[in-house]
Amino acid sequence: MFGFNYFTPTKVVFGRNTETKVAELIKEFGGRKVLIHYGGGSVIRSGLLKRVTDTLDGAGIPYVTLGGAVPNPRLSLVYEGIELCRKEGVDFLLGVGGGSAIDSAKAIGYGVANEGDVWDFYDYKRKAAACLPLGVILTIAATGSEMSDSSVITKEEGWVKRGYSSNYGRPRFAIMNPELTMTLPDYQTACGCTDIMMHTMERYFTNGGNMEITDALAEGLLRTVMVNARILAKDPGDYDARAEVMWAGSLSHNGLTGCGNDGGDWMTHKLEHELGGLYDVAHGAGLAAVWGSWARYVYKNCLPRFKRFAVNVMGVEPEGSDEEIALKGIETLEDFFRSIKMPTNLRELGVAATDEDLITMARKCAAGVGGCAGSAKKLYEQDMLVIYRASR
Amino acid sequence: MFGFNYFTPTKVVFGRNTETKVAELIKEFGGRKVLIHYGGGSVIRSGLLKRVTDTLDGAGIPYVTLGGAVPNPRLSLVYEGIELCRKEGVDFLLGVGGGSAIDSAKAIGYGVANEGDVWDFYDYKRKAAACLPLGVILTIAATGSEMSDSSVITKEEGWVKRGYSSNYGRPRFAIMNPELTMTLPDYQTACGCTDIMMHTMERYFTNGGNMEITDALAEGLLRTVMVNARILAKDPGDYDARAEVMWAGSLSHNGLTGCGNDGGDWMTHKLEHELGGLYDVAHGAGLAAVWGSWARYVYKNCLPRFKRFAVNVMGVEPEGSDEEIALKGIETLEDFFRSIKMPTNLRELGVAATDEDLITMARKCAAGVGGCAGSAKKLYEQDMLVIYRASR
Repeated sequence: MFGFNYFTPTKVVFGRNTETKVAELIKEFGGRKVLIHYGGGSVIRSGLLKRVTDTLDGAGIPYVTLGGAVPNPRLSLVYEGIELCRKEGVDFLLGVGGGSAIDSAKAIGYGVANEGDVWDFYDYKRKAAACLPLGVILTIAATGSEMSDSSVITKEEGWVKRGYSSNYGRPRFAIMNPELTMTLPDYQTACGCTDIMMHTMERYFTNGGNMEITDALAEGLLRTVMVNARILAKDPGDYDARAEVMWAGSLSHNGLTGCGNDGGDWMTHKLEHELGGLYDVAHGAGLAAVWGSWARYVYKNCLPRFKRFAVNVMGVEPEGSDEEIALKGIETLEDFFRSIKMPTNLRELGVAATDEDLITMARKCAAGVGGCAGSAKKLYEQDMLVIYRASR
Repeated sequence: MFGFNYFTPTKVVFGRNTETKVAELIKEFGGRKVLIHYGGGSVIRSGLLKRVTDTLDGAGIPYVTLGGAVPNPRLSLVYEGIELCRKEGVDFLLGVGGGSAIDSAKAIGYGVANEGDVWDFYDYKRKAAACLPLGVILTIAATGSEMSDSSVITKEEGWVKRGYSSNYGRPRFAIMNPELTMTLPDYQTACGCTDIMMHTMERYFTNGGNMEITDALAEGLLRTVMVNARILAKDPGDYDARAEVMWAGSLSHNGLTGCGNDGGDWMTHKLEHELGGLYDVAHGAGLAAVWGSWARYVYKNCLPRFKRFAVNVMGVEPEGSDEEIALKGIETLEDFFRSIKMPTNLRELGVAATDEDLITMARKCAAGVGGCAGSAKKLYEQDMLVIYRASR
């Protein structure tokens, strides 16, 4: 096992009607002028945005608003937000929505609190020395951005999708009302469940450094998400299932399920990032579409973990060779994906990629990770291409 | 399930030699003049204190020291610490040791940062509005105080032991090097493992409000602690087992294993607090000594949880009536306690309590909780007395 740092300072306020506490929380964390940053119209249509602005009005907290964060949130809007914050003297950011709005708000926060081009951080050129304080009201359980140190932004020029991680970007508070996720389309709910599982699985499939307690937490979390994803596929209005998934989403990506490991594998995410940059697919669905091909390509290099996963998470009987058990685990997860209507390849994802596209993605992916990366198995450009091709 | 707040801002720095980072961390959190507060001579004998002061000297951070925190740390030393901090202009506390040193440091922090008598907070008279910032170097895995909001202090006058919980008291950082726990006597290690388990079990045995994900995490944590407590009973120098237990100790009491519940039961702790106040027994051993009697008294009122515990944590086969399964779970935990040389009654604890003593403890315990408390079953003074008598 490895040493680790664990830092999750976000104050979580979880439960029904918790959005009514937003003004109080902004004040607690010193906000005096707020940018409310959100995504599409659903936050307006549901009345959430109005409830938030009414609460801020009532508390005498001035604010400006900026909508328009899209899935795979874009750099141009981040620039717009930075300019708006500077013009309006904003000292606190409130992200309202899912990972897109929150990631975009984090990027705005880096941009306002640091000199120079904010893209530098995402382009691995330098590190942020600060971030404007940020709170969130979560409406989609998926990215875990509400407690995580990471944000992912897409630069339109060349459609480059890159993530940046820094403790400065961890939200000060996260308001989580599971009811706010109930109006999500089923497909988005399933994408969210996939993303949540994958955040823990990226930390789970590693060579070396695992802790028994981390594994126990990870496995319990994964089983819980699967049970509740299935419930939500049938009854999207089940509050308890929404709550289980929502809280799992935060715990899956705040660092808890990686304590003691080597940092994780993360190659499924990297492979998906190129897909997301090029085709603008839903992140969770993209992960599901490439995971099986990745897993079959790497499992022999990480056999004890794949076997353990099969038995402890997928409920596979530990009969047969380790390889057979591991493969059965991979198949069982793909069955699960199909049961919640997630794709298990690019075709099912609706992406008709040419071989040239795959070559481009492999090249960009390898460049994005500095040549090679991965823990279950170290992947180079040629490995990435094999996986992309297998996932068609 | 209930709504909840979850707030664990402590920056954990975990692994070998992490104590070398203490000066850097104190600076990160703004400390300029430090009180190093510790317990007995083991911190001196092991050379840890010297390593810490050398590091602070090297970094040019001035400090004063105060030793003498004993198990069931005492109010008189807290007063002494408050006075010393005020005289010396201390703005940062460093607790070095186990729960006693950390709890005592928290109390000193409340005392310095607030007017009036610090005991008022522990006596439920008022709430602290601040606490001096605090970092810790943990040398005993047990109380979870390194990440928790709670501290327990004993007032010598009348031997009253009381806990106070506030987010202000959560440490800013916690340095956790499992190697530092290796010189602990086996009895203390076992006491620590018991305490750790009990922090999660107090949150687990509740009537209503449980979340599946919280249960999964709690059960995984409990199983991990049992496995590793048994390893340490045979090989106290096993680093990995030390690490598993140490990290479990923090997660067991930082709030994670109670998310969504009704606040927990906590009566085993309350019953033990009176024991600890009167006889100065080791906290973990005291918990083990009363738990079985508590469990047998309350399990019928919390049967689904006791059954689940038996099957999912204790590995009891789900055969027979719910009551039989639940009872078998209680017996299996007592067997485990015996296997790590923990007592399962007052006699084995070495306490020869007269009936008058038990009557006094029940009276004080009931007064301490405002008449009655508990979630598995609400307990009044007469219930507490029955449990104390059964535990003889």
